[in-house]
Amino acid sequence: MSIVDFLLGRPLRSSEERGEKLGALGGIPVFGLDALSSAAYGPEAALTLLIPLGALSVVYIIPISFSIIGLLLIVFFSYRQTIAAYPTGGGSYIVAGKNLGESAGLLAAAALMIDYVLTAAVGISAGVGALISAVPSLQPHTLGICLGILLVITIINLRGVRETGTVFMIPTYLFVGTLLITLGIGIFKAMISGGHPSPVTAPPVLGGVTAAAGAWLMLKAFSSGCTAMTGVEAVSNGVRAFREPVVKTAQWTLTIIIGLLVVLLAGIAILCHAYHIGATNPGAGYQSVLSQLTAAVVGKNIFYFVTIASILLVLAFSANTAFADFPRLCRLLAQDGYLPYPMAIQGRRLVYTIGITVLAIFCGILLSIFGGVTDRLIPLYAIGAFLAFTLSQAGMVMHWKRVGGKMKRSAMLINGFGATMTAITVVVVTLTKFVEGAWITVLLIPAMIVLMFSIRRHYTRVQKEIANPGPIDLTQMGAPIVVMPATSWNKIACEALQFAVSLSSEVHVLHVDSGEDEENARKQWLECVEKPMMKAGLPVPHMNVLKSPYRFVINPIVDYVLELEKKNPGRQIAVIIPELVQRHWYQYFLHNQRATWLKAALLMKGNQRIVVINAPWYLK
Amino acid sequence: MSIVDFLLGRPLRSSEERGEKLGALGGIPVFGLDALSSAAYGPEAALTLLIPLGALSVVYIIPISFSIIGLLLIVFFSYRQTIAAYPTGGGSYIVAGKNLGESAGLLAAAALMIDYVLTAAVGISAGVGALISAVPSLQPHTLGICLGILLVITIINLRGVRETGTVFMIPTYLFVGTLLITLGIGIFKAMISGGHPSPVTAPPVLGGVTAAAGAWLMLKAFSSGCTAMTGVEAVSNGVRAFREPVVKTAQWTLTIIIGLLVVLLAGIAILCHAYHIGATNPGAGYQSVLSQLTAAVVGKNIFYFVTIASILLVLAFSANTAFADFPRLCRLLAQDGYLPYPMAIQGRRLVYTIGITVLAIFCGILLSIFGGVTDRLIPLYAIGAFLAFTLSQAGMVMHWKRVGGKMKRSAMLINGFGATMTAITVVVVTLTKFVEGAWITVLLIPAMIVLMFSIRRHYTRVQKEIANPGPIDLTQMGAPIVVMPATSWNKIACEALQFAVSLSSEVHVLHVDSGEDEENARKQWLECVEKPMMKAGLPVPHMNVLKSPYRFVINPIVDYVLELEKKNPGRQIAVIIPELVQRHWYQYFLHNQRATWLKAALLMKGNQRIVVINAPWYLK
Repeated sequence: MSIVDFLLGRPLRSSEERGEKLGALGGIPVFGLDALSSAAYGPEAALTLLIPLGALSVVYIIPISFSIIGLLLIVFFSYRQTIAAYPTGGGSYIVAGKNLGESAGLLAAAALMIDYVLTAAVGISAGVGALISAVPSLQPHTLGICLGILLVITIINLRGVRETGTVFMIPTYLFVGTLLITLGIGIFKAMISGGHPSPVTAPPVLGGVTAAAGAWLMLKAFSSGCTAMTGVEAVSNGVRAFREPVVKTAQWTLTIIIGLLVVLLAGIAILCHAYHIGATNPGAGYQSVLSQLTAAVVGKNIFYFVTIASILLVLAFSANTAFADFPRLCRLLAQDGYLPYPMAIQGRRLVYTIGITVLAIFCGILLSIFGGVTDRLIPLYAIGAFLAFTLSQAGMVMHWKRVGGKMKRSAMLINGFGATMTAITVVVVTLTKFVEGAWITVLLIPAMIVLMFSIRRHYTRVQKEIANPGPIDLTQMGAPIVVMPATSWNKIACEALQFAVSLSSEVHVLHVDSGEDEENARKQWLECVEKPMMKAGLPVPHMNVLKSPYRFVINPIVDYVLELEKKNPGRQIAVIIPELVQRHWYQYFLHNQRATWLKAALLMKGNQRIVVINAPWYLK
Repeated sequence: MSIVDFLLGRPLRSSEERGEKLGALGGIPVFGLDALSSAAYGPEAALTLLIPLGALSVVYIIPISFSIIGLLLIVFFSYRQTIAAYPTGGGSYIVAGKNLGESAGLLAAAALMIDYVLTAAVGISAGVGALISAVPSLQPHTLGICLGILLVITIINLRGVRETGTVFMIPTYLFVGTLLITLGIGIFKAMISGGHPSPVTAPPVLGGVTAAAGAWLMLKAFSSGCTAMTGVEAVSNGVRAFREPVVKTAQWTLTIIIGLLVVLLAGIAILCHAYHIGATNPGAGYQSVLSQLTAAVVGKNIFYFVTIASILLVLAFSANTAFADFPRLCRLLAQDGYLPYPMAIQGRRLVYTIGITVLAIFCGILLSIFGGVTDRLIPLYAIGAFLAFTLSQAGMVMHWKRVGGKMKRSAMLINGFGATMTAITVVVVTLTKFVEGAWITVLLIPAMIVLMFSIRRHYTRVQKEIANPGPIDLTQMGAPIVVMPATSWNKIACEALQFAVSLSSEVHVLHVDSGEDEENARKQWLECVEKPMMKAGLPVPHMNVLKSPYRFVINPIVDYVLELEKKNPGRQIAVIIPELVQRHWYQYFLHNQRATWLKAALLMKGNQRIVVINAPWYLK
């Protein structure tokens, strides 16, 4: 078993593809991890902005959370309909592209690609950040741990979809399960105590009021809380990965994910209000909202630590949603010619190897630049996701307008409202985070669109040039002129020359003058080649000695070939390169690599009438 | 002007070689730096071992130094005769190999190569160590500075011999000049004061006696002091680099170098005695012998600092002697087939580029492993040099015995005595330093000899296999079977097929089934190929569809070719690979590299009857 087989698993036959499809239960960890794990930071992000309101923050979190839930439900219905309308995979790229035009599609695609890279980076760094708050001694190794987790996730994904589901299933369901139990107990306690439960472990007392509650603050808190919504588009983008009946399974998966997320968001908001839990400032004394909440409901017992551990795991693994979806998006773009087409090729394990690798590389670069610190990554984040939401929903408006039907009006209204709200979010997020890093995203998106357009233009040009060949041209059936360089006269050269004279009656042998043993070479040439060929009545190959004052060997040969080609328009030039093949890598150092360099130089400087023939010689 | 031209200088014509030859004055910095700079550590190394003798150390240093000078003069006469006997370059490798046999030559060569790498590493690290004693704040950057200096020396050497001489001339002559002036003033002061001069700046008082002076201690001090002799063989090894008359110029250079070294060593010993200067222990309060001596004679004025600065420079640059000689030794070995023969090729600047690069790499590795600390490198050092001295002089004994002449007896006696003394030194150095690191050298030398023998065996085998081809075989003039893989039917494939049918009447077209567009491909094939060829009365190429359940493309093609080759013994198989040539590097990512991989796979798994033809297609 090779190391590759061990790491990535045995190659899978194309016909095994069906076996790799996902059901709803398996689909939730793969496509829902990102969305569900955002319950761990979305409400906290909103509460953090409300800190200046002191004790009032737990009052305002209720309407803000339910606005987010409302927006989430709108987006849910939109994507539910998208799955049905585009059963072969309808991410924002497809929907925006089909309904709003090519540029809108590419805008959505660029936004999503950036967002996926950020999802992976933020997920890993947030998980590691949480781990480090628990075990501060790991602090100096932040980046190393981030990259280690990235590597593990990459290898798991290269192994293929089904195994990914298995690995991520346990932490996902542990996370959902423990949180649901906590919320259930908490709400039960709140109800029997008339809405004023006493906490098992008391949360920190909320600070004083330092600012007035204004509309701008509410909007900012709302848009920060909206980070809870990233990852919702994953299912609709990956419909093809689901088991038959594809649409039903995918819709069912999406419904469960959104349902769980709604319950989590609502429960967290209600319990924050009931237990008076607000966000704490980062730094000394910091405690995450979910940590405070769990401790308040059940106390700091073993259940508390299991909950916290599952949060850590799920945050780190939420990066996996990006790994499930980024390669699929790249494949769509590659099939349309906007990305290099090898990205559309399924690898040995039926996954899109190159897309996974590219995501891993960019994510690794991002983590390295920002040192694995979540706070520095966050300002770049969410713009992409909400831009894609907006374009997708705007696209669905046009879709309904085109398709029509009796539901047309209400469907257009829902999507239009959703698009408007997400568009406002995009504007707010961009404005409030511009200086801290959003400008990077704002610059990257058009740059990627330009890149994708130019890739497409390249393919179109190539396609136009090589497509539709006419009938084969049988007028140029003449033998080529054969050129053969030979540094010395030995069996390798002799065998190559044998092949040369069998191809053509016009053979040019090139000898680059090294100033050594000229006499002997001439004599051998006469005995071994000239005499036997003249005897057989065959035309004797030309022997040309090339001078090389600078001791270059490649250049004089290439120049000779190009000159010959110019002098003989309409004829093929075949350059035979005799080559000693090394059977072992260490023999590489024992022989010069002139054959390799010569082939590369001829390919670089040559043209279509110059063909390179490699005549190998193998040692016994 | 390209970056390579800027860094390394324009390429030099082979006919410009004469201009790069050295005179005596230019040859001293190139070949003498190592030997001369060792005056800065040789006497100190001996005095360090005499520290337990306290004030008596300055008494014993006189006979020890003069023994070393005696040995140095013996070695000088030996190498002076070697230069005359071997005017094309007679290092220990040549002399030992010619007179004592192949194994002795290789033993000397292995010892010398290790010694050169160590010379470079020790020189640089000693220089940087001295710099860091002067500027302690640079301490954390020790390794970085070492590697930086290594890089500069490497580039200077890649530019060529003459420019090397120019760069190193100033510090060398500054070093020799300031030291000679110091010694002259000191000896004058000692003479007018009746042998008891009063120091300008008093050296530290010598410690008490803690050990008795025994023969073993004297031998150890002697052999430590012998590090002053490393580098003496450089001139004889590099005779070819000198100007005509080669022998006279080289001998003259060697005489000046040894003369200067003798004066320096004698002067230092005498003044240490007169001024009561001994070595100090490393660590706090450490002061080098030359620093104490200069301060005692002239005081700590500007002249003192110029002297110390030139010592630092010369120590660091002494590495250059290794760079001048290591590549020349490698070239000799490569010409004899004991090292990869590309090491014998002169690069663009007429220097042995690969030898220089290899030395730089090994030296960099050594510096990195030992953190640029001289003390850790020293125990590995000197064994090689003295082993080479011994073998060279033993070889010269045999040389005189063979050549004869009236000087035979005295010449043999001098060389025999020298060989015996250096042999004793080898044994003493190995025994006293074995545990601290000499074992590495002791293990490396036989390993290198084994490696060189096996390289030679490889070349001999290849040579035997490919040499003396018989007359060209004109019986197999039949056309080859042509195989052409084509993933889709386009102009690239069409043009390649045109060439294929012009080569042979038996053409196999291979199509790896990707499960797409089978119908259309078949139709195009019929219209574009089959019909026109049948019309012209030509044999239609076979079209073979290969199944590939694992989506591999390369393997099925290679298997088909190998199968075909087996079925058709005695016929050539020519595999035509159509290839889209990318004109720009960034286009590399836009197309798959199957052509490249297929070529590599065919070369790896193929045999002599399988020839690969590259049919390039260039975009307009």
